[in-house]
Amino acid sequence: MTYAAISPLAKTELFSEQWQPKVVAEMNDYQFKVARLEGDFVWHSHADTDETFIVLEGSLRIDFRDGAVELAAGEMFVVPKGKEHKPFAAKEVKVMLIEPRGVVNTGDEDQGERTAQNDVWI
Amino acid sequence: MTYAAISPLAKTELFSEQWQPKVVAEMNDYQFKVARLEGDFVWHSHADTDETFIVLEGSLRIDFRDGAVELAAGEMFVVPKGKEHKPFAAKEVKVMLIEPRGVVNTGDEDQGERTAQNDVWI
Repeated sequence: MTYAAISPLAKTELFSEQWQPKVVAEMNDYQFKVARLEGDFVWHSHADTDETFIVLEGSLRIDFRDGAVELAAGEMFVVPKGKEHKPFAAKEVKVMLIEPRGVVNTGDEDQGERTAQNDVWI
Repeated sequence: MTYAAISPLAKTELFSEQWQPKVVAEMNDYQFKVARLEGDFVWHSHADTDETFIVLEGSLRIDFRDGAVELAAGEMFVVPKGKEHKPFAAKEVKVMLIEPRGVVNTGDEDQGERTAQNDVWI
């Protein structure tokens, strides 16, 4: 049989909404999620897990309380658990996130409308 | 302070040997490894974990006993735990692997010279 490759970037063409991560694959109890981001997100952290960002198209800045990292397409960064961060994109950026199943986009506190529905596949 | 982005593709320019994965980042107890692959690898499986392949440059085929998947640059595939597989690349391909720390490239059986040193960072 022929197995299907997954193209994270192509998956981002299947939806237009921003800040709503969609699951494209699972590895053990981890999920690969793609999202379109633009503008400023909310400050948050994940007490129990690191979180990986991979930029698929565009560029992303992740702000920390003590600095920032700038990611171009093809670049990645692992935000350590417990570290407050705030993604920012001047123009829309397409990213892939890797984190354990069940992790909420806004971190450990409910942040209202910015909190996305979890475990949505595409 | 300025944090450093990681470019998996740029990391592959720092070495030339094939079939020798190098760690570029960690997320919890998982590692991101880059490698140059060319030709046929050995059949193997990982009884306890899934294994993720992301193609950075070039193209990769992963053979299974019942089929195969073809991956172009930017595409990914998660090989389920326990599933026998054999990577193949007609021309050199640059890939990123994601798997738990400690996973050996040739799987659960010692396969001699094809077994790479583990946990080598670059």
